[in-house]
Amino acid sequence: MTLFIDMDEVIADTYRAHIKLYNKEFGENLTAEDCNGGEVWQSVPEDRRSRIHRHCHEVGFFRALPPIKGSKEVIKELTKVYDVFIASAAMQFPNSLIEKHYWLDEHFPFINWKRRILCGDKHILKGDILIDDRKYNLESFEGRSIIFTSPHNINTNGFERVNNWQEVAEKLL
Amino acid sequence: MTLFIDMDEVIADTYRAHIKLYNKEFGENLTAEDCNGGEVWQSVPEDRRSRIHRHCHEVGFFRALPPIKGSKEVIKELTKVYDVFIASAAMQFPNSLIEKHYWLDEHFPFINWKRRILCGDKHILKGDILIDDRKYNLESFEGRSIIFTSPHNINTNGFERVNNWQEVAEKLL
Repeated sequence: MTLFIDMDEVIADTYRAHIKLYNKEFGENLTAEDCNGGEVWQSVPEDRRSRIHRHCHEVGFFRALPPIKGSKEVIKELTKVYDVFIASAAMQFPNSLIEKHYWLDEHFPFINWKRRILCGDKHILKGDILIDDRKYNLESFEGRSIIFTSPHNINTNGFERVNNWQEVAEKLL
Repeated sequence: MTLFIDMDEVIADTYRAHIKLYNKEFGENLTAEDCNGGEVWQSVPEDRRSRIHRHCHEVGFFRALPPIKGSKEVIKELTKVYDVFIASAAMQFPNSLIEKHYWLDEHFPFINWKRRILCGDKHILKGDILIDDRKYNLESFEGRSIIFTSPHNINTNGFERVNNWQEVAEKLL
């Protein structure tokens, strides 16, 4: 069975990174809960939104992301049962290509280069299960689509949902 | 209809680049014909093979590859009829990730970032047609597999074959 796992907001915590940079720059106390139902940039005053957008273009942003709790341990177990691929829509941010590669080398060394996919559009993926936080990726997938909870998707319905990696383990292991 | 097109040896001329670098370094006159039936590294004396292998790890190698004759013009026409994606098994050479991206920006600007796939293994691709020079990529593809002639595959049988981009145009346009 082929299992695709997304990166940003599924195994790499982009919310935490955006919020930390934002709070540092503006001396604020924004939290992930403040973002519930939207993106980080939608949760800050309009004149500061461009700062959030800029993070993704900054060298080092993707390389420094903290892994999401439990992802390493559970994915290591999943690789014993499934053909696991990490699939990230990385092409939008060219800097991120090599950073994502090195990030996986550090945090997920058991996902070797043959198991890594950097693409622009995920509807070209052929496999059995996709774990992703984005509705538009899950909708076009032909297999079992599992939505991984992220502040922006808490109001998205119509998909099997997991709230954390413990729940992934319970469903798939 | 979704059409996947490989990069190296299909739209980017890695043979010509390897041979040019080799001839410059060793003062030789190796040609693509000398490589027929094998890889470039198999066509040079054993004690020089590591030099060929090293090219792919050198910064700038993939960025400087010459496009294969006719590829730009024909692919531009193909994009009017097919959903064209460029799919390259680039993960083996991390340097190549960003170089391939910029190379496409220069030579194939009409293939935008949403249409680019950098992966390690192509058996995860879902689509209708794959044009590739490698047997192992074509074998695992579920759709129509078309082999693009390269010196190393001239003795590979069992696939629909095109020898150049003019022949691709005749078949698919």
